[in-house]
Amino acid sequence: MVWRKLADELPKEVNDIPIDAAVITSEENCRYISGFKSSARTVIVTRDITYFLTDFRYGEAAQMHVKDCKVIVYRRLAKSVEEILKRHDVRGVLMEYEKLTLAQAGIYEEVCKACNITQIKDETLDTLLKELRSIKNPEELKQIQTAQSITDAAFTHILNYIDDSKSERDIALEIEYFMKKQGAENIAFDLIVVSGANGSLCHGVPSDKKIQRGDFITMDIGAVVNGYHSDMTRTVAYGSVSDEKRQVYQTVLQAQLAAIETVKAGISCNIVDRAARDIIDAKYPNTFGHTTGHGVGLEIHEWPYFAPSCQTITRYGMVLTVEPGIYLEGKFGVRIEDMVLIGEHGCENLTCSTKELLIL
Amino acid sequence: MVWRKLADELPKEVNDIPIDAAVITSEENCRYISGFKSSARTVIVTRDITYFLTDFRYGEAAQMHVKDCKVIVYRRLAKSVEEILKRHDVRGVLMEYEKLTLAQAGIYEEVCKACNITQIKDETLDTLLKELRSIKNPEELKQIQTAQSITDAAFTHILNYIDDSKSERDIALEIEYFMKKQGAENIAFDLIVVSGANGSLCHGVPSDKKIQRGDFITMDIGAVVNGYHSDMTRTVAYGSVSDEKRQVYQTVLQAQLAAIETVKAGISCNIVDRAARDIIDAKYPNTFGHTTGHGVGLEIHEWPYFAPSCQTITRYGMVLTVEPGIYLEGKFGVRIEDMVLIGEHGCENLTCSTKELLIL
Repeated sequence: MVWRKLADELPKEVNDIPIDAAVITSEENCRYISGFKSSARTVIVTRDITYFLTDFRYGEAAQMHVKDCKVIVYRRLAKSVEEILKRHDVRGVLMEYEKLTLAQAGIYEEVCKACNITQIKDETLDTLLKELRSIKNPEELKQIQTAQSITDAAFTHILNYIDDSKSERDIALEIEYFMKKQGAENIAFDLIVVSGANGSLCHGVPSDKKIQRGDFITMDIGAVVNGYHSDMTRTVAYGSVSDEKRQVYQTVLQAQLAAIETVKAGISCNIVDRAARDIIDAKYPNTFGHTTGHGVGLEIHEWPYFAPSCQTITRYGMVLTVEPGIYLEGKFGVRIEDMVLIGEHGCENLTCSTKELLIL
Repeated sequence: MVWRKLADELPKEVNDIPIDAAVITSEENCRYISGFKSSARTVIVTRDITYFLTDFRYGEAAQMHVKDCKVIVYRRLAKSVEEILKRHDVRGVLMEYEKLTLAQAGIYEEVCKACNITQIKDETLDTLLKELRSIKNPEELKQIQTAQSITDAAFTHILNYIDDSKSERDIALEIEYFMKKQGAENIAFDLIVVSGANGSLCHGVPSDKKIQRGDFITMDIGAVVNGYHSDMTRTVAYGSVSDEKRQVYQTVLQAQLAAIETVKAGISCNIVDRAARDIIDAKYPNTFGHTTGHGVGLEIHEWPYFAPSCQTITRYGMVLTVEPGIYLEGKFGVRIEDMVLIGEHGCENLTCSTKELLIL
């Protein structure tokens, strides 16, 4: 039971306040605990039992699909929350911080005031949850791997689809349709397909620009399976490839392989970033403006990060991306991205698609 | 210029604090002001000028696409915000409430403290923005109408696609693919296609259940064009229709038409809800558990609502849905939904698809 892990890690007290419960409202954290996706949701974790609260619209589905939690269908959220907190004699409660809105906070504020319960509104609960979520259990890994295998299949599929009659948008839509037909519940993010000079926008939006001979095409794609994401980027050439493009490609690939080489449990995350960044900075300074990687799971971007400032120590079971890039403004861009599972003595690359420079 | 309307409506003071600016961070409100979609965004509206702040990843695209605002690409958000607020001698600033998270609020809290600026963290700014956004200008209407025309086309398309070899999921995916091929930038929400007993879940998720003879199929679908949403529901029969189903269908249709009949500028929103609800409650009590309609625009659900408790007075230029339904648990459900534009003496129905009971 996922909630049991959180219940076990709830601090005994914070600032001398005894902690008896945690209130969770953010989409992904609620799904992590309950296994259920709903737009009306509050999870209350106590030391003995966990509640999933939802409204009329999701009641029937929640009864069927929520895992390990007691489902409460509320008429008035505040009233149901109050009843539960009172029933368990809650004195102090951890609240979320990163995603709790002022408006939501206002509801719980009022309830807790009425019941003389102290709210802890800092990063304590977020930190517990992001640490728990960063270590994927076998069931979660299976979902991520399924999502990635759909993504690999989509890449293979699209290589035969691309030609100069297709626009970036056509390609993105074909990948999406293919992944959903294969069982993806969604795409992992707005898919990025950029070509030619558009490739210098590292978060560009697919346009109606048609593929042209000599273009690099960067495809940053991923699928969602049972809430879990995959994330992969490949850059391929269409028709021909100039020497400059080939050199940039090889530099990114070299940086990416060097970074992956460093990945294992027990190291500081920024070592991985450094390995990629050193290689790119030496040859193409000021062209790699984002971080080298990020955790992936119920969200496409999760803690921790392969970033210059991230000194988190990697642990067995974390899944992160490794995705250096070079962006030459107004000319073109290259990014290569895999997802890796951190192991004791290295890592397992979850991405199967080739990184050889393909010329379609 | 959209921001100018907001600047003009900023209160002179709140609680004796002179108001010189508003800080906006939520996705849709930022897009409303700037016309640009970005995951890194802060909009600062002053009385003279409006700023759009983003990071390295979106800098180039923002320079190209942001409307009427000065684009600032920040390295450290807090520092750029501080510079702007100081430059304009800001004394009091309105903050969002509904969507501002505690973590975001923390950033601005610190900046404002350092600059001796008072933050107004209540519903003042949200209310100004939701009221402005509720009245659609001609440009916005055009986007909504385009989104709806794509939705109507998708409905026509899908009628020929549905047969008993198709699952709910197949149908939903085909509608999505069709709408995106027609130019929709996205689907307006997770499309709902439910059939047979699944139809009693008013927010059901398309399953692998195949369509069967005698099923009602409820399709709640919509597209997004340049950020603007459409929303339509149709229920059709497959193969045959029982007398009970036909009666329920006619009751929902009668309720929907009666509700639309009441819609015009200058009435209380709950009058529209009442018109539909009275008809359903008389014949099928306790089967219509949601509200009759909601505003539509940059979000799929916007203020105001055709809800029992909503006493907002309708105004010319508002766009709302009218969508009563009857849900017979474990048996079937029917919902019929149009989008209407409120006019002085009635309303314009923006939805063109037939509401005759179709038997495929």
